[in-house]
Amino acid sequence: MTHARPTVVLLTAEGVDPPTDLDAVRGIADVRECTADTLAEALPGAEILLVWDIFSGALAEAWHAADSLRWIHVAAAGVDKLLFDDLRTSTVLVTNARGVFDVPIAEYVLACVMAHDKQLHRTEALRLQGRWEHRETTRVAGRRALVVGTGGIGRATARLLRAVGLDVRGAGRRTRDDDEDFGTVVDSARLGEHLGGVDHLVMVAPLTGATRGMLGADELAALPDGAHVVNVGRGQLVDQQALTSEIASGRLSAHLDVVVVEPLPDGDPLWSLEGAHISPHMSGDVVGWRDTLSEQFTAHLRTWIDGGEPGPAVDKDRGYVSG
Amino acid sequence: MTHARPTVVLLTAEGVDPPTDLDAVRGIADVRECTADTLAEALPGAEILLVWDIFSGALAEAWHAADSLRWIHVAAAGVDKLLFDDLRTSTVLVTNARGVFDVPIAEYVLACVMAHDKQLHRTEALRLQGRWEHRETTRVAGRRALVVGTGGIGRATARLLRAVGLDVRGAGRRTRDDDEDFGTVVDSARLGEHLGGVDHLVMVAPLTGATRGMLGADELAALPDGAHVVNVGRGQLVDQQALTSEIASGRLSAHLDVVVVEPLPDGDPLWSLEGAHISPHMSGDVVGWRDTLSEQFTAHLRTWIDGGEPGPAVDKDRGYVSG
Repeated sequence: MTHARPTVVLLTAEGVDPPTDLDAVRGIADVRECTADTLAEALPGAEILLVWDIFSGALAEAWHAADSLRWIHVAAAGVDKLLFDDLRTSTVLVTNARGVFDVPIAEYVLACVMAHDKQLHRTEALRLQGRWEHRETTRVAGRRALVVGTGGIGRATARLLRAVGLDVRGAGRRTRDDDEDFGTVVDSARLGEHLGGVDHLVMVAPLTGATRGMLGADELAALPDGAHVVNVGRGQLVDQQALTSEIASGRLSAHLDVVVVEPLPDGDPLWSLEGAHISPHMSGDVVGWRDTLSEQFTAHLRTWIDGGEPGPAVDKDRGYVSG
Repeated sequence: MTHARPTVVLLTAEGVDPPTDLDAVRGIADVRECTADTLAEALPGAEILLVWDIFSGALAEAWHAADSLRWIHVAAAGVDKLLFDDLRTSTVLVTNARGVFDVPIAEYVLACVMAHDKQLHRTEALRLQGRWEHRETTRVAGRRALVVGTGGIGRATARLLRAVGLDVRGAGRRTRDDDEDFGTVVDSARLGEHLGGVDHLVMVAPLTGATRGMLGADELAALPDGAHVVNVGRGQLVDQQALTSEIASGRLSAHLDVVVVEPLPDGDPLWSLEGAHISPHMSGDVVGWRDTLSEQFTAHLRTWIDGGEPGPAVDKDRGYVSG
């Protein structure tokens, strides 16, 4: 069944640039632009919702007005902000920006891994003090990385880390020993049993009921001295207070592109710890990322109008696109 | 011809740790330990000189005392501090630490390239100010790198940069289009003609009469706006004053592991430029590097005693081991 000129609700926010490809969307659909405040007014009669303000959780409140909704596309990899029970049990299709962030985030993780092992931040701190202090750094090849999350981003990360010689395993829902990207995938529900000997722990899992807080105080304690945590998933995957303590003690260090409350509040101790390298949720945002996201939606929209399936569906119970 | 128990002069300096494998050397040779001041007293009758204080240029002064010298091993990749005309025209064999630094330095270069494109230093500077400022970074795959120097370190660097998707060429003495690591090698004597479109310029050439000052003001001006220079070779490859100006203007940035005068003098403007990431000549010095250097010499010494060739000779006219 094809769909004649559908109505697309574009959920955006003040200060967010519009989709670059919006003219193309307007050529094949009626577009109602709204923000969280006006979402309930925009939804009646609309078949499609484009969640362009990816941090918005406004749909749950406006759900009563979604009388014709068939498909929601979220212009992000993680859909944790969107999902709620009525949506889960509905027949509304949810898609995400699958693929767009895979290699950009993998590159970002590699940058963090290399910066850690080559002590670039320490060197820069010494440089700012005008200090020339020779130190020994670490050979990266042969270091052991565990990538928690075996979706597209985790796979791209594993491939890139392997390309420079790291010894990589994955942690996911389904254990196996013959994964093409990870080789071994250990059970992410028993993460603490697999952290001994890990040099770089990369958190890239989606935030779901099963993954929230998966890296808790016990798991952090199971990491060896000097281990390095990279979080490019969601802040809530980690017990942030426990991690802060481990970094403050000097036992662990971390690159955190995501934190529990974003932006990280003024005065949070993470801001001032030498071993906590905070970045503002930007790991996947390479030049042109908004264009890519916009073009991805337009292509999906064309497929939908032609009666096809617009990209793989998010498993609304699991909270991610299930391989 | 085998050599019965030779005499090895070990040229070291105060504050430099001795070779870790020195006991093994003493098992098969007589060792005379000296510093620059006592080198002339140590040399008479000795067949072998191990230059362990790799920044020493003391041999030229003490050359008159080298009445039995057959072989000099320098525990470094670069031999520019050692060479002088009388040594060049002599029959004394010179070997270096070929291979030891290849992958460590390649990894360091990759770390600098990734840190640049992912803006890690800027993020850390903002972090120190408690500022959460989202920015867009650069996709690394597809970026263009030119590696100046096609010896072992340059080759390892090219392989690693290619492994993460950069578009890599080399610059060397012999141009070609079918190099296994570089694909295309352009003429390093005409460097300025090959710098348009270069995102990352990696200087890893040995310092010789032909390479001194090869990256001058004209060549720097030929680099596109925003280009990034990584120098892990020798400071004297680059016109440091011209580079300082380009960085001060914000047009170029650099990771400089080597500079003309080391340590970089207090008050040098490079210390305080945001785009000049100075490190203290440490790119190849991974944990265990001194052990590796020491074991390499011991292995070469065994070969020499057995009448073999202790590693590939440095071409004393060219100033490096010629492929």
